[in-house]
Amino acid sequence: MNIFGTNYRIMLIGSSHGNLVGVVIDGVPAAEEIDIGEIEKDLMRRAPGQSKVTTQRKERDKLVIEAGILNGKTTGEPIVAFVRNKDVDSSYYDEIKDTPRPGHADYPAFVKYKGANDYRGGGRFSGRMTIGLVIAGSIAKQILRRKGVSILAYTKAIGSIDADVREENLKPSVVYDQENIVRSIDPELVSQMTEAISNAKKAGDSLGGIVECQIRGLPVGVGEPIFDSIESKLAHIAFSIPATKGIEFGSGFMAARMRGSEHNDPYIIEDGEIKTLSNNAGGILGGLSNGMPVVFRIAFKPTSSISIKQQTVNQLTKEKAELKVRGRHDPCIVPRAVPIVENSAAIVMLDLMLAGGFIGA
Amino acid sequence: MNIFGTNYRIMLIGSSHGNLVGVVIDGVPAAEEIDIGEIEKDLMRRAPGQSKVTTQRKERDKLVIEAGILNGKTTGEPIVAFVRNKDVDSSYYDEIKDTPRPGHADYPAFVKYKGANDYRGGGRFSGRMTIGLVIAGSIAKQILRRKGVSILAYTKAIGSIDADVREENLKPSVVYDQENIVRSIDPELVSQMTEAISNAKKAGDSLGGIVECQIRGLPVGVGEPIFDSIESKLAHIAFSIPATKGIEFGSGFMAARMRGSEHNDPYIIEDGEIKTLSNNAGGILGGLSNGMPVVFRIAFKPTSSISIKQQTVNQLTKEKAELKVRGRHDPCIVPRAVPIVENSAAIVMLDLMLAGGFIGA
Amino acid sequence: MNIFGTNYRIMLIGSSHGNLVGVVIDGVPAAEEIDIGEIEKDLMRRAPGQSKVTTQRKERDKLVIEAGILNGKTTGEPIVAFVRNKDVDSSYYDEIKDTPRPGHADYPAFVKYKGANDYRGGGRFSGRMTIGLVIAGSIAKQILRRKGVSILAYTKAIGSIDADVREENLKPSVVYDQENIVRSIDPELVSQMTEAISNAKKAGDSLGGIVECQIRGLPVGVGEPIFDSIESKLAHIAFSIPATKGIEFGSGFMAARMRGSEHNDPYIIEDGEIKTLSNNAGGILGGLSNGMPVVFRIAFKPTSSISIKQQTVNQLTKEKAELKVRGRHDPCIVPRAVPIVENSAAIVMLDLMLAGGFIGA
Amino acid sequence: MNIFGTNYRIMLIGSSHGNLVGVVIDGVPAAEEIDIGEIEKDLMRRAPGQSKVTTQRKERDKLVIEAGILNGKTTGEPIVAFVRNKDVDSSYYDEIKDTPRPGHADYPAFVKYKGANDYRGGGRFSGRMTIGLVIAGSIAKQILRRKGVSILAYTKAIGSIDADVREENLKPSVVYDQENIVRSIDPELVSQMTEAISNAKKAGDSLGGIVECQIRGLPVGVGEPIFDSIESKLAHIAFSIPATKGIEFGSGFMAARMRGSEHNDPYIIEDGEIKTLSNNAGGILGGLSNGMPVVFRIAFKPTSSISIKQQTVNQLTKEKAELKVRGRHDPCIVPRAVPIVENSAAIVMLDLMLAGGFIGA
Repeated sequence: MNIFGTNYRIMLIGSSHGNLVGVVIDGVPAAEEIDIGEIEKDLMRRAPGQSKVTTQRKERDKLVIEAGILNGKTTGEPIVAFVRNKDVDSSYYDEIKDTPRPGHADYPAFVKYKGANDYRGGGRFSGRMTIGLVIAGSIAKQILRRKGVSILAYTKAIGSIDADVREENLKPSVVYDQENIVRSIDPELVSQMTEAISNAKKAGDSLGGIVECQIRGLPVGVGEPIFDSIESKLAHIAFSIPATKGIEFGSGFMAARMRGSEHNDPYIIEDGEIKTLSNNAGGILGGLSNGMPVVFRIAFKPTSSISIKQQTVNQLTKEKAELKVRGRHDPCIVPRAVPIVENSAAIVMLDLMLAGGFIGA
Repeated sequence: MNIFGTNYRIMLIGSSHGNLVGVVIDGVPAAEEIDIGEIEKDLMRRAPGQSKVTTQRKERDKLVIEAGILNGKTTGEPIVAFVRNKDVDSSYYDEIKDTPRPGHADYPAFVKYKGANDYRGGGRFSGRMTIGLVIAGSIAKQILRRKGVSILAYTKAIGSIDADVREENLKPSVVYDQENIVRSIDPELVSQMTEAISNAKKAGDSLGGIVECQIRGLPVGVGEPIFDSIESKLAHIAFSIPATKGIEFGSGFMAARMRGSEHNDPYIIEDGEIKTLSNNAGGILGGLSNGMPVVFRIAFKPTSSISIKQQTVNQLTKEKAELKVRGRHDPCIVPRAVPIVENSAAIVMLDLMLAGGFIGA
Repeated sequence: MNIFGTNYRIMLIGSSHGNLVGVVIDGVPAAEEIDIGEIEKDLMRRAPGQSKVTTQRKERDKLVIEAGILNGKTTGEPIVAFVRNKDVDSSYYDEIKDTPRPGHADYPAFVKYKGANDYRGGGRFSGRMTIGLVIAGSIAKQILRRKGVSILAYTKAIGSIDADVREENLKPSVVYDQENIVRSIDPELVSQMTEAISNAKKAGDSLGGIVECQIRGLPVGVGEPIFDSIESKLAHIAFSIPATKGIEFGSGFMAARMRGSEHNDPYIIEDGEIKTLSNNAGGILGGLSNGMPVVFRIAFKPTSSISIKQQTVNQLTKEKAELKVRGRHDPCIVPRAVPIVENSAAIVMLDLMLAGGFIGA
Repeated sequence: MNIFGTNYRIMLIGSSHGNLVGVVIDGVPAAEEIDIGEIEKDLMRRAPGQSKVTTQRKERDKLVIEAGILNGKTTGEPIVAFVRNKDVDSSYYDEIKDTPRPGHADYPAFVKYKGANDYRGGGRFSGRMTIGLVIAGSIAKQILRRKGVSILAYTKAIGSIDADVREENLKPSVVYDQENIVRSIDPELVSQMTEAISNAKKAGDSLGGIVECQIRGLPVGVGEPIFDSIESKLAHIAFSIPATKGIEFGSGFMAARMRGSEHNDPYIIEDGEIKTLSNNAGGILGGLSNGMPVVFRIAFKPTSSISIKQQTVNQLTKEKAELKVRGRHDPCIVPRAVPIVENSAAIVMLDLMLAGGFIGA
């Protein structure tokens, strides 16, 4: 199933080494002003080759919008948007096609599609497919913003370097600052995180990390029980991002070690409004927004493509083999995952706000 | 949206204090033998009042199947199955209806439904709704078993007591042993976990924990990219279980701190078949099963209903209030969550095996 | 696929000779007052045994509502409603199970389900399944009425006796008058139509006819292009009613013989509102309501169950066979189809009005 | 809702005067050989300007396939295919935008979209949107053919000239013969039908007609009860084709005047296979294919765009107005509707054969 969403429905099109990668979006509210420049900026944040901590491949992702936006406004018809794949060299993938790369989808995809799938550059399993998530989310974010909803993702941890999240840093100008090439929420950790990634890279190895995301300004009651809770929908899309290994909301896995009396967030009145004193709930109770910031974290595994020699097998002959993954790969995917998480969250929140009638179709 | 699943579609019916709670299932393969006794056994494992670590409420959940199974076989028509709610006393909920219980859905549900929702016993947000998941999953498990797929969930942790998972304990006879009232995967931790729960109970408090689940015997290639990966679907249903705070697969959040060279599972040949040496992937690559056991963990928060006095507000008058949740509640939901997780996983796996053509409709 | 509808989603449950037949409805707007008596009245109009022109079977269809309506109001949770099957005698169906009845689904169902389907009384192909349509539509009709939308179906033709539709007869009191046992829109044709049916019955034969339906009071713009036009949705559900052979809107098949200058409905201003002078469009342009009455007609074939001897085959031995369908069957289904068409139309219109935001969820 | 289909899911993209019109298809079986030339041929059959009985506009519909077909085979990823709109002059539509054209969607679309829709050339309501149906159906037809399923549509009637359908004419070479510019199933009626259209054109008027379609070679049991019967699905898509006023299967509306003993198709054994003597069922019983040819007819209204002066209103000022529709329009849409019906039927049949497991995904 290549379609996600009930009201704001997205279909990812293309593949890593095909003509293009992008998205078709059905259910877009009509007459919404869309700033194309903002989508391009979000694509740039995801793009490879931006800094020394990302891959040096330059993909020149130029946005093409073929339908659904006219004179800067949505027409209500499906939006068709993509970037063309350029200068793609698939020869390497032919070379390694029988020796699945550890950590990649190569082997189960080979079995599932009986060898008929497009294995070049990971095909439909490529991280490049997230371009469609960024485009669809960037459009959603603009519509949400006009309803007072803002979304910000940032690097919480690179390897074992874990950042504190301070209220004053929670702004795009900090996270997307030119110098902050790791997208850390704590600017003081930028050089330390950068060094950790550089060291992994020098060793031909890679690093994992954690992206945290906050959604603010949601009205109370967003989310559709029983199966379309905020958590269910965000978790669903989170695991569509390659390299995701876990997701947690609010207190998350720490909750397992807490007592109810610590964990329950007491209600208070603040400026005449009902709030909670703490936010272990992560802004969600019973799957519904409760007016506090929605907070979630996604764990990313270290990039699977490493240049250290690895043990594998030949999937045809079933013999032992060795493999060194060639090419220029991200030593840590986390900095580029930040805008992907942020925009994926926007897709879900627009879908749910449409479902709940908070935004008219 | 009350419907989950693409091929094996379930709709949860009823509410906590209504006539009944249960499930309607569409897309059930025809002519499958179903042992009703097994479903009843699964319901018993979820039922309250089983032991001193669960609530003392006795709900006498008697299974009724009204359609879809004839002479012990599925007919292919939708299955309608439920248990009737008995001896329900809703008076307490009337008493506290304006003072939302911390940790529960009361307040956002009040706002969303403008006070018109059935607040009695949590209504549709009640843990009692999981009865439908258990029934649908128990049926799915029987169909899956005939395809060689087995699923087992167990308590991995209660509070800070974390069990080791040893291969020899991975069997229902250990987890569902009468004496193992906490459903621990390590039988030696039963008394320690039991005591921890009892202590929390005595203090009028509650405890969280972690349920782990393993799915074995899956063919390679189950899962439908891009949006219906095994992880996306399992995570989606996991957050439909009340009290879930996080989910992780394989290495999970630990992956964030690992290097690629540690994390990538090297391929090996074992008995002529392609396997991996380690299983950080948790049996899933690119959203597809890779032939290794699927392993995931769900973090549960401590039960929100505690008898310690809590700070809340009156949601009508917006004044401060205090609340002591009355009634008999589970001091720790984890032991009863074990069969819920296990059966929810079965729902997803049957849905995906039908989607992939591994089982005929 | 047993689910119909995007916003008002219905699933038909049960089967002809199972425990029950009915419906589960998801997406019902909350806090809507529902008069159960009205649903019962609609079920009575569909019920067999009401008059000499319908089958003499008495099915005593007693409505049971198990969930979703509390104190006369919808709760927003799925509605579970059905009637129990009583005194079902399946012995006859065992007798004829290898000799498919001409005009029935017996033979293709036997092939499709490899003999495993419930063939008793037609199983899921039985006209009795329409009970779920009547219940779901009767609830929808009550919600629509409060939005000013009224729906009326009536017998337009029995065999070759075709009624004129006069504005003054377009009211339930005419169509559902006790004496009007054929549900004719022209009261003067009642005896003639009754006689035609009686004659067919005496001959052991059956008759077809046409049901027309009008939907009035729709706001302009209901319908969702491209694929959820009013026509597409009404036609879709129309062919879920057994015995339907065709559907046409407005001018219908006559349009094929008309010129554009005759067919186009000229716009006029009437009481300050935009109307059309004629209504060849049947109230729909581009799939959207245009403010004129929606008018459509459904052709029903003569009942397939006749007591005249018929030529068939033994589907196991592939030998010639003969068959006389026993039992008490409707000599003409049209009078009982009238409330089914009316209520099916209500299901579609509520679904589309929810989709278009004309009614809040 | 712009998506149609459960397994073979199509989304129509673009609009009449936008950059492009086309289709995105999800759920395409992988590794199917597709002859692009055949799709182009089907597009040509739909294209305007082919003959003196169609509009003289030349749209030069050049097919572009951007994703999903690689080296002549489907890859399993969504197919993205379209034709670019060229030399579009929208000035005329600006001129008439406040005076809705009788028979078109102009007025209800104006109300629904509050004037924000793309009214140029009918926007999303344009007949040009059917290009996506032709592309998706042409691909489906090639997959179906390899399973022995063939589909042929043809002109049954133009105005009151009604053709006899003789078995020997049921072949593409007759219907799509260069000389048979009206696509008549009876070659002897070509000149008469051509003349009727020419006369209407000379008068500035237009004509309606009937397209019949036959689907042969279906296995027994295709169709998914209750709501995804062959009839429901074909009728659903039929009303997505602009100008459709009615659809009937087999005996169709004639069935209303028949007796059961005439209408029931007796079973016979022919060459060891179960067949029926007549085919009033139109190849479908209980929504399932019964092995006989599926036969249906669609009534098309006369083209709404006529050059005769028509009465309309100004939808802003609510004053009387007059309108002469300018431009080159088809005096009769039926010849160009033939390939649209044929390919739309293919979309449905592939969707249902995938659903029933007759074709593997």
